[in-house]
Amino acid sequence: MDTKFSVALHVLTMISESEKTLSSEDLARSVGTNASYIRKIITLLKKADILSSQRGKPGYQLTRPAENISLLDIYLAVQESHSINLFHTHHNANEECPVGAHILQAVNPIFEETQRHLAQDLAQQSLRNVITNLYTAAGKPPPA
Amino acid sequence: MDTKFSVALHVLTMISESEKTLSSEDLARSVGTNASYIRKIITLLKKADILSSQRGKPGYQLTRPAENISLLDIYLAVQESHSINLFHTHHNANEECPVGAHILQAVNPIFEETQRHLAQDLAQQSLRNVITNLYTAAGKPPPA
Repeated sequence: MDTKFSVALHVLTMISESEKTLSSEDLARSVGTNASYIRKIITLLKKADILSSQRGKPGYQLTRPAENISLLDIYLAVQESHSINLFHTHHNANEECPVGAHILQAVNPIFEETQRHLAQDLAQQSLRNVITNLYTAAGKPPPA
Repeated sequence: MDTKFSVALHVLTMISESEKTLSSEDLARSVGTNASYIRKIITLLKKADILSSQRGKPGYQLTRPAENISLLDIYLAVQESHSINLFHTHHNANEECPVGAHILQAVNPIFEETQRHLAQDLAQQSLRNVITNLYTAAGKPPPA
């Protein structure tokens, strides 16, 4: 079970909303995992230019406001991919068979359209939506 | 890489369009895999009431016309699931932490909506669309 996406949302929400500087140990305690797993997620989020840190200083910062970080940005960062690749196709079909020769041309347009819709869906949601939901769930108004 | 969905579409297309009775060996040769893998996929498709076979007779039949078998039916069959479960959440967040206590309530509505849209997308496409695409790719008119 790949929970990297949900862990990344947890980590980013904490970094965005905490007034204190958070270490990977602090984040791990809240997520319920170990600090090395958190550092792995943070490395992916830094590589995707979602998080940054300053040399010699503890803690991490969002590189831009939460409303400008889409869930698609975060999902692709933790998948280490530039596009959604949900449906994997088999690539050794028999070219001599009339079905085998054309099956990928038959399924790929459908797979691609579905994946494009999923990407659009995730692109329309931002980290801000998660943070707003979190305050609502906690029964607190978001800080002004 | 899980290619069960694309293999299932290949197998179902062949069973739908072939005039001959096809064994798991015939299907395996076209897919480019072994017959035991094909039998595994067929077992899943039979369990989901998409394929049937007659006791003591070789071959398999679709249980209903291809236009009445949605890609969602096929996807859920090979995933052995009753619903799309694309985004897995972490379940050991620290309840003492204000973020940990509410993170699942914050992300679940977003995950569920996205998964519902994906399910709707796959439900709107049927095995018939794959078959039609296949004839188009082969430059042949579909049989009347």
